[in-house]
Amino acid sequence: MPTSSSFTSLPSQVRALRCILCGAETLDPWAWSCDSCGPDSRMDVCYHPSGDLRERVAQRPFDQWRYRELLPLPEGAELPPIQVGGSPLSEAPRLAQALGLRRVWLKDDGRNPSASLKDRPSAMAVVLAAAAGSERVVCASTGNAASSLACLAASMGLPATIFVPQRAPAPKLAQLRIFGARVLRVAADYDTTWELCQRIATRRPWFNRNCAVNPYLVEGKKTVSLELADRLREQIPAWVAVSVGDGCTYAAVVKGLEEAHAAGFIPFVPRVLGVQAEGAQPLVRALEGDGRLELRSAETIADSIAVGHPRNFQKALDAARRNEGRFLAVSDAQILQGMRDGARLAGIFAEPAAAATVAGVAEARRRGILGSQDEVAILVTGNGLKDTATALTAVEGPEDVPADEAEIERRLAG
Amino acid sequence: MPTSSSFTSLPSQVRALRCILCGAETLDPWAWSCDSCGPDSRMDVCYHPSGDLRERVAQRPFDQWRYRELLPLPEGAELPPIQVGGSPLSEAPRLAQALGLRRVWLKDDGRNPSASLKDRPSAMAVVLAAAAGSERVVCASTGNAASSLACLAASMGLPATIFVPQRAPAPKLAQLRIFGARVLRVAADYDTTWELCQRIATRRPWFNRNCAVNPYLVEGKKTVSLELADRLREQIPAWVAVSVGDGCTYAAVVKGLEEAHAAGFIPFVPRVLGVQAEGAQPLVRALEGDGRLELRSAETIADSIAVGHPRNFQKALDAARRNEGRFLAVSDAQILQGMRDGARLAGIFAEPAAAATVAGVAEARRRGILGSQDEVAILVTGNGLKDTATALTAVEGPEDVPADEAEIERRLAG
Repeated sequence: MPTSSSFTSLPSQVRALRCILCGAETLDPWAWSCDSCGPDSRMDVCYHPSGDLRERVAQRPFDQWRYRELLPLPEGAELPPIQVGGSPLSEAPRLAQALGLRRVWLKDDGRNPSASLKDRPSAMAVVLAAAAGSERVVCASTGNAASSLACLAASMGLPATIFVPQRAPAPKLAQLRIFGARVLRVAADYDTTWELCQRIATRRPWFNRNCAVNPYLVEGKKTVSLELADRLREQIPAWVAVSVGDGCTYAAVVKGLEEAHAAGFIPFVPRVLGVQAEGAQPLVRALEGDGRLELRSAETIADSIAVGHPRNFQKALDAARRNEGRFLAVSDAQILQGMRDGARLAGIFAEPAAAATVAGVAEARRRGILGSQDEVAILVTGNGLKDTATALTAVEGPEDVPADEAEIERRLAG
Repeated sequence: MPTSSSFTSLPSQVRALRCILCGAETLDPWAWSCDSCGPDSRMDVCYHPSGDLRERVAQRPFDQWRYRELLPLPEGAELPPIQVGGSPLSEAPRLAQALGLRRVWLKDDGRNPSASLKDRPSAMAVVLAAAAGSERVVCASTGNAASSLACLAASMGLPATIFVPQRAPAPKLAQLRIFGARVLRVAADYDTTWELCQRIATRRPWFNRNCAVNPYLVEGKKTVSLELADRLREQIPAWVAVSVGDGCTYAAVVKGLEEAHAAGFIPFVPRVLGVQAEGAQPLVRALEGDGRLELRSAETIADSIAVGHPRNFQKALDAARRNEGRFLAVSDAQILQGMRDGARLAGIFAEPAAAATVAGVAEARRRGILGSQDEVAILVTGNGLKDTATALTAVEGPEDVPADEAEIERRLAG
């Protein structure tokens, strides 16, 4: 917990932090778990009623700060100079036709500064860290959370320390180091690295960007829903689809849609389809079963959702129940097909975890969860350029031809 | 040249195509070189005076089609469903301080659909190809031109054929194949591949996306200047900087600024600093020497500007002279420094050719071309995720630590 701080009390638009288990509320902005429910409990940020926001936001820039009444932004907080959010939304009529749906929208969060949706919560983190006078921001990750934190911290001139496990791949470390983060590679697996990071960070004036414990990060993530609702208004589809790893993003997407509805942007709350990989589907199993979590190791090409132990399990489960949401899992082969479909039918190259969402929508149509008259907005959570190695396995190579004009002509005619 | 076509005459806002050598004009939209000056001559698109456009564009979406009075868009042309242009502009005060300049702006064209500025001209190409009823779009390239063409063609449902030379790297081919382009790998070098593509394409109803011969592509590229001018208006800096390979982009940036000035967006035309790599600096040599082009092989890590034979030499040279522009070259070591500076001081991870521009601004400051009171807008033409292998060479690795809390604490204290 930082010492010097302009973030010693909750911003005026925030009513309280509320325990997701017992509902107890607190006004302490640094109470990230509930006293009664213990250190594994999680908090949600609750706002004072905003009233209708449609007119109020209309003249603001289209980025994630546009919805400041629904964000834990301290008064006068410094924002990153680079644009976060405001990602493009496009219709994909040929993809819709291929999937057998009436209409498909794609929201391309791969256009964010470090090329994933995670830039939204990381931006929230660095803004609060700066407001709190934190000495550093810190997280344990090798994936999009880490690269987005390194990127956003650099944009604000804030030092970052990233703990990575032994097996972190070199290109991902390169991105962290390019942004100047201090990278500590721990001779251990991810879980041990995470625990070490957690213990070391909490005894320092560092800001912990860990979506599972930090209640403010979901607030950054939910802006993808606010933007979607703000753009589509009455045209909002009945379904939104997103891939699910540890559950934070799913919970955030639902929360954002609920708040967008309360703020007058959309006439109803769309149902949210959560897509997991077959090799990492604890939430699918919990929702199909008795609601209890069964931990298994994760095995899928979609590294951003390769989570065996979802640390925001309860938030995701609660959100799914409130939302009448659905969950399903897709195979790696389906994910590669989703990658080709998104690229070839809509011009959007998605990373495997985002392509899983395209595949999940196809699967939902196959199972009859979606019908031919349904409309869906697919959240593309990361850019395919983040993992070209997997993309290579999704396609066949080029056609080899000799440097012979007549021969090439014959090939083209054939 | 396509056969069936709604693009049989120039759009009404276009006055003529004009030969850049003799100034002769034509109304034939398919006359891509001048009858008098021969097949190596190049044409420029000239418009009827647009008058002041500031009010007229104000209510339109912020993407490259916003400036349609200054684009060769046929009436009612279909546009790609994905957003092209409208790239974010950010101030970079810490980078400005490090470079010893008053103010630095970064325009991040790495946020385009396939993550480079080349999406602008490729979007122009597919729009005209669709309007012309072309059967396919085609180009010879392994770089950003090819991936952007594959991406934009896919977004419009237009088939694409890409000719690549034998040595094209696998990850770049993956991106082309993901977007579903037909990729012909020719057992030859780039120049032979380019010539073969050219001959084969011109005898078919295919649309040739080759910036050196196709006069319309520069029109897509110039929109980066139009956006910059539109956003900054009276705040436009005295200098704009961009890296230079074959010269098309430089010429386009100057043309865009001139047209933005004529349309009332900016009070003067900024000077444009062109940055080449030391191992590929034919334009620097020509401008320092007698204006004649000396062909050499190109050798630099910045693949997007590794051009020994700039095929739009004359357009770039003319633009530099009209503009009082400056050219200089930077070393590969400077380019890597530019990559670290952009990422660490501004949160923008640029591909080597774009990092070269940051390095070039530093070099211009060192040489006194820029002074401490100068302001510069740097065009970031491509995303660093396109070439993480080079980024790996720009940084040192992580710090290895044991899975031992006390030992990590000692390191952090040290």
